[in-house]
Amino acid sequence: VSSGFCMGFMIAHHSCVRGSADIFAMITACNIRNYSIYLKDGLLFAYYEYVGTDYDADMAKMAADPRTQEWWAIMKPMQKPLDTRAPGEWWAEMQEIFHVD
Amino acid sequence: VSSGFCMGFMIAHHSCVRGSADIFAMITACNIRNYSIYLKDGLLFAYYEYVGTDYDADMAKMAADPRTQEWWAIMKPMQKPLDTRAPGEWWAEMQEIFHVD
Repeated sequence: VSSGFCMGFMIAHHSCVRGSADIFAMITACNIRNYSIYLKDGLLFAYYEYVGTDYDADMAKMAADPRTQEWWAIMKPMQKPLDTRAPGEWWAEMQEIFHVD
Repeated sequence: VSSGFCMGFMIAHHSCVRGSADIFAMITACNIRNYSIYLKDGLLFAYYEYVGTDYDADMAKMAADPRTQEWWAIMKPMQKPLDTRAPGEWWAEMQEIFHVD
């Protein structure tokens, strides 16, 4: 299952973050694979594939991780979520309208 | 190598197109894999992975395919490319700023 999300502007300096290897390992531990973020005109698009069986539980595990919380505390002030996002969303989920393997 | 692109509004009715199986087969023949298109607020994001060795040659092959030309003739009038696209672009390439396998 692949997912697409988009939101407003962010500047990322991943290599500057203490413990970024820990954050990457947590992403993998939460069954996220092939995770990319793209930027164009101040708009971000994130793509990843979820390979687990309990998405909500994995997302809760990620949110509970202290290193991930530290990372989000740096990143979130640089992000402006879309006004059209759904209630409870930060990144706004996009509708998949086409897929060819 | 994965790629991200975005552009303006499109309405797609893929199943209505004659020979859509041919078009999908041509996409695969041109070494495109894991190709998805997402929609949010009239903005499209396309993601795919190129697994060949000569991207320009594969894109030329796709562009020369009659079924693909028929498909594009239907789709392009429904698409509004981004004003900020590079010269020669239709879909505007996005910069990949983050990746975790």
